[in-house]
Amino acid sequence: MNFFGGIEAGGTKFVCMVGSGPNDIRAEARFPTTSPAETIGRVTAFFRQQAQELTLSAVGVASFGPVNLDPTSPTFGYITTTPKPGWANTDMVGRLKAELGIPVIFDTDVNAAAFGEYRWGAGQHLDPIIYLTIGTGIGGGVICNGKPLHGLVHPEIGHMLIPHDRELDPFPGVCPFHGDCLEGLACGPAMRQRWGQPAEILPDDYPAWNIEAHHIALALVNLVLCYSPRRVIIGGGVMQREALFPLVRRKVQQLLNGYVHSPQIIENIDQYIVPPALGSQSGVLGAIALAIDSMEQQSG
Amino acid sequence: MNFFGGIEAGGTKFVCMVGSGPNDIRAEARFPTTSPAETIGRVTAFFRQQAQELTLSAVGVASFGPVNLDPTSPTFGYITTTPKPGWANTDMVGRLKAELGIPVIFDTDVNAAAFGEYRWGAGQHLDPIIYLTIGTGIGGGVICNGKPLHGLVHPEIGHMLIPHDRELDPFPGVCPFHGDCLEGLACGPAMRQRWGQPAEILPDDYPAWNIEAHHIALALVNLVLCYSPRRVIIGGGVMQREALFPLVRRKVQQLLNGYVHSPQIIENIDQYIVPPALGSQSGVLGAIALAIDSMEQQSG
Repeated sequence: MNFFGGIEAGGTKFVCMVGSGPNDIRAEARFPTTSPAETIGRVTAFFRQQAQELTLSAVGVASFGPVNLDPTSPTFGYITTTPKPGWANTDMVGRLKAELGIPVIFDTDVNAAAFGEYRWGAGQHLDPIIYLTIGTGIGGGVICNGKPLHGLVHPEIGHMLIPHDRELDPFPGVCPFHGDCLEGLACGPAMRQRWGQPAEILPDDYPAWNIEAHHIALALVNLVLCYSPRRVIIGGGVMQREALFPLVRRKVQQLLNGYVHSPQIIENIDQYIVPPALGSQSGVLGAIALAIDSMEQQSG
Repeated sequence: MNFFGGIEAGGTKFVCMVGSGPNDIRAEARFPTTSPAETIGRVTAFFRQQAQELTLSAVGVASFGPVNLDPTSPTFGYITTTPKPGWANTDMVGRLKAELGIPVIFDTDVNAAAFGEYRWGAGQHLDPIIYLTIGTGIGGGVICNGKPLHGLVHPEIGHMLIPHDRELDPFPGVCPFHGDCLEGLACGPAMRQRWGQPAEILPDDYPAWNIEAHHIALALVNLVLCYSPRRVIIGGGVMQREALFPLVRRKVQQLLNGYVHSPQIIENIDQYIVPPALGSQSGVLGAIALAIDSMEQQSG
């Protein structure tokens, strides 16, 4: 039997996993994100050790970004312009391939999470789907016609421009590029700065949550109109606040105002806007799913 | 040799074409959009007459909407909730198939136009691409991973919510559903109502164009962030004003503020945001392209 590796390459930690799916995880390890050499060294040592006991066919990587996903580019597989010290222009795919000698499939952390949910989680048999994460930053991945959506670079849904009602919320936003884009208004650090305390200690009935739900709902309306997704999955630290989901769902319905004639939105929105079924493992399992899918494409 | 039919089914006229591509058009006809029975009758009579002289393999339809594109639905191939008198719940695919006896491929007018530009026009060898039309209404089609993007319903990009600077433009918008969504602020009728005269008679230096470019650029920024398209093609009556293109391009660069590190946007935006290469024929040629693609998929 063949197994696959998954790497969730994050700005603070790398999560590595070996298995063939969520019900068959054979090994797992976590390493803090230090220098590229040290971190990738630990990752490859882990997988080489695993490969002594089982056959690793391919490794998927769910990476923080921005990344280069263009296979025709000389810097394909690189983490590109990240402000993270030491990590700009890191050749992730090249280093992993050289050390492990097996195919490496590379995508954004959010595209991988979307693909994990598409294969095994809340997005099974649904196309297109969106996975949105709202935490320290805001990002989104999209599965469309069976594959993650790439393009010129990759989607940067978090920086979407949304109407900003300054009477409701005079906060100018924290995005260094756009001020009051979605991430500027609604990421965790924005909430912290806006309310002077971390979002997680604010009670459910604090006005922060209503305003947060308003910003998120505006973005979801645009995502529904742009992609016509069959389901929208929202994860990330801010969305751990369960009270947000019903607020967001109701506001999406109000803002769409019956325009999208679909029972999923008008009647069953509780099953349309949902948390990830794979919990915090969407990304690393998604990396494994990308590796499996790549092998299936080759053999099929 | 096999030929293909294309139908651009619009709210005011139906354009029919027989051929195998933009350089091989064998016949063309236009009929005013009256009742479904009369209009579809004329369309099928035209194709039956053509089929006496050449082999028609399939027909593509680029339809006004909303339409049902879900092949598992009992009302697949219908025009659904249109306010156009007589046309709500019209079984386009069923009627055409019954009359013509060949495969009928059905999509939105804007998805077909996007596919036409993808196969033969300004979007060749580029994926994903967006085709946006700004005229009486605003709509968009998307090609993603080689196919038009469908979904729960289909994209309704025209109703995207954008920041509305009421100091720059106090006009409340004309959309009956959302007021100041993109279509509400920037479609042709919005311009006419806002400025008290049809847009086409306003001179290039009239303030209307700067404001129009601002609204369009906000929407394009969101489309670039959502899809990461390799090119954005904009057609429709309002975009006949050539002076709009440079205004829109400059504002997109300003709003993105260097965030998307791509030479296509930062250096070559003149080749990134472009008019359709197939002119007013994107839709009907796109319908033919959909028919050809469907046959290629079956045989390949």
